Amino acid sequence: MTTLTFDGKEYLDGITSDPNILGWMRGSPPAPDRLITFQDDRFLSFPRHRWALSHVSELLSVAPVARRADRVSLLAPATETHTTAFEALRFKSLDGQDTSWLKALSDTYTDGIAVLHRGRLVYERYFGALEPDRRHLSFSLTKSYASTLAATLIHEGALDEQWRIPHVIPELAATAYGNATIRQLLDMEVAVSYSEDYDDPGAEVWQYARAAGMRSIPHGYQGPTSLYAFLCRLQGAGRHGELFDYKTPNTEVLAWLMQRVTGVPFATLLSERLWQPLGCEHDGHIIVDATGVAVAGAGLSVTLRDLLRFGELMRTDGAIGRQQVIPAAVVANIRRGGNRANFARADYPLLPGYSYRDMWWITHNQDQAFEGRGIHGQRLFVSPGAELVIARLASHPIGTSAANEPITQPLIHAATELVRTLL
Amino acid sequence: MTTLTFDGKEYLDGITSDPNILGWMRGSPPAPDRLITFQDDRFLSFPRHRWALSHVSELLSVAPVARRADRVSLLAPATETHTTAFEALRFKSLDGQDTSWLKALSDTYTDGIAVLHRGRLVYERYFGALEPDRRHLSFSLTKSYASTLAATLIHEGALDEQWRIPHVIPELAATAYGNATIRQLLDMEVAVSYSEDYDDPGAEVWQYARAAGMRSIPHGYQGPTSLYAFLCRLQGAGRHGELFDYKTPNTEVLAWLMQRVTGVPFATLLSERLWQPLGCEHDGHIIVDATGVAVAGAGLSVTLRDLLRFGELMRTDGAIGRQQVIPAAVVANIRRGGNRANFARADYPLLPGYSYRDMWWITHNQDQAFEGRGIHGQRLFVSPGAELVIARLASHPIGTSAANEPITQPLIHAATELVRTLL
Repeated sequence: MTTLTFDGKEYLDGITSDPNILGWMRGSPPAPDRLITFQDDRFLSFPRHRWALSHVSELLSVAPVARRADRVSLLAPATETHTTAFEALRFKSLDGQDTSWLKALSDTYTDGIAVLHRGRLVYERYFGALEPDRRHLSFSLTKSYASTLAATLIHEGALDEQWRIPHVIPELAATAYGNATIRQLLDMEVAVSYSEDYDDPGAEVWQYARAAGMRSIPHGYQGPTSLYAFLCRLQGAGRHGELFDYKTPNTEVLAWLMQRVTGVPFATLLSERLWQPLGCEHDGHIIVDATGVAVAGAGLSVTLRDLLRFGELMRTDGAIGRQQVIPAAVVANIRRGGNRANFARADYPLLPGYSYRDMWWITHNQDQAFEGRGIHGQRLFVSPGAELVIARLASHPIGTSAANEPITQPLIHAATELVRTLL
Repeated sequence: MTTLTFDGKEYLDGITSDPNILGWMRGSPPAPDRLITFQDDRFLSFPRHRWALSHVSELLSVAPVARRADRVSLLAPATETHTTAFEALRFKSLDGQDTSWLKALSDTYTDGIAVLHRGRLVYERYFGALEPDRRHLSFSLTKSYASTLAATLIHEGALDEQWRIPHVIPELAATAYGNATIRQLLDMEVAVSYSEDYDDPGAEVWQYARAAGMRSIPHGYQGPTSLYAFLCRLQGAGRHGELFDYKTPNTEVLAWLMQRVTGVPFATLLSERLWQPLGCEHDGHIIVDATGVAVAGAGLSVTLRDLLRFGELMRTDGAIGRQQVIPAAVVANIRRGGNRANFARADYPLLPGYSYRDMWWITHNQDQAFEGRGIHGQRLFVSPGAELVIARLASHPIGTSAANEPITQPLIHAATELVRTLL
């Protein structure tokens, strides 16, 4: 058995932790020590999550995000030549280790990765429990979907970014959100007392997870058991607008705003505004809480190719051919980025020069690249300059991106340099 | 408010109980008295089930039954002329009441109905919470899917219908199934102590529903909490092979057999053997228990058109064009029917002359029609003689078919006579 070390702790490596090799949920019934169930909270932790992230609907309740059968756009598979070119890449991690493309995928616990260049599929690979027809939890990539829709509603005038949140949701008047604006939500500049430290069992993120239907609720639990009940309890922690402070509940408030003003469930908004026009191949699945409310901050499961389609839409300024699906101004505003000084004061040593805008991470590099990011290695990299989109779904043992960044950044860089040489 | 009376009890009629009119799950959040949740067992009862049967994945855990995006076969919509011809039909219910096509649909609480004639869509209508892109729980129609696959595995030699069940599943040796054969399962001729009386809260069907993940499990519940644990407790109730005795656990045993011999989960079998070759438009969803086991007796949600595709496959003797998806011998064996004497001794006064074979209901009428049936009005009617398939998904207040049969039978008869006049 081979292991990798993160934060001083050893974990099975990407190959030995392959869920097919470990045999999770194999057999009828599976052996007791190979069983993954919702009641056992370990289902969202390594190594069980390597199976669970590709089987979310079997563990949790989800609302389908419907694509239209008669509007599916298919993608031709990557050629052998392109595939070989990617798999011949070698590069150095930020720690200075030599690595290869395939070793980098394994060492980042990749479940699926695909690359579009000028709209053409040039690389696509699946590992472990993921398959082309299977959805994978995208965690916080969900936020980029939600915010792009919200920015669209703002562009259309259904919401105003300067509105204070209780203007639409009076229930939030006495919370941290009582004097915050929609713009502050979008840029994660709300000061809210909420710890997202996954390593601290007392952190509010676990209360959130229970309210969101993502964790079982212990008998006699006194905490909130629905997302809205949870949001109504959040208290402030200082002045808004002064810090970049990444808090998942902000996206839940954003989705609540959208649903309140449109009267349309979030899953339906996603379907009508993105899944159908994008020609998605598969329905998405979004986790819903016990009252049917979609988990807009972390709950979307999506197939690799459909994730790629969303990235491609962002690369092409919101248009598919002549159809403007998302206003070009919305994409332009995201690409311009957010407050770089605020971002610099937050603690992201591996993301120098970045900013955050509308729940996208903006690199401000020469190619004007921007990213969606989710814990455990989810990534959607959009590079207008290199005419490139990379989608990666993964099940890294560690939640925070910092653990995979030393490999992910040079991997993306190598792919970018490679596609510049492609015709 | 208009009501209908069944078994001496009044219920809102089909129009006034429309879930859109009642406003279930509308608003963010829905009003407390409009909320439908899994924890509230009423979600599977009238009138809440009129919403819930079209939103199963939002309430329960489901495994996707994947179709292939690149193998979808589309159907042209029914013409205006055909639609008008169906909606002009008038006929008498078995009780002698004059009714019209649309009133009959409403009075059977139809959520969706579609008619294929010679493979061409001639009628299609959705009501209430159902939409073309939405799946609806098919209840016991799931059995006909499971049994058709099992008969195929028998045809291929992976199973032998004369095997006693413990030959494959030794865990069932000390149960009702210990000396039953696979053939007895398929024809519901196993004598098992299991009450399917939905009106009796003490009936085993409720224990089954909890084990299957279809009902919440009360704190401190001592009964079985997985399907296999439930099946291992079922005791015998006489000699097998002497009575037609319709018991849902028989299908769960059948699916267990298939999964044990193939090593493949039921959802994957359905996908590979039916969904992909049928060119289904949408993934199916099958309810899974707390250990991930699919509920093969009652758990499949399917879109109306995809249900129709399965019926059409059975009408065309298992072939789609030149591709033999299900062996013709399997379909022929079903069409020949089962033991009519055993069936006649069971209590189905509204189904004179019927028999039951391989979990299909055989009419033995002049057109050699046969049916899949599920509680609350689910029906898949296949008529080789009339070159006709009718699929209906519904949310009738009463579980047993007897409540809707007085309208359903003349409705099907009227549709059959109409299509005989079509070119």
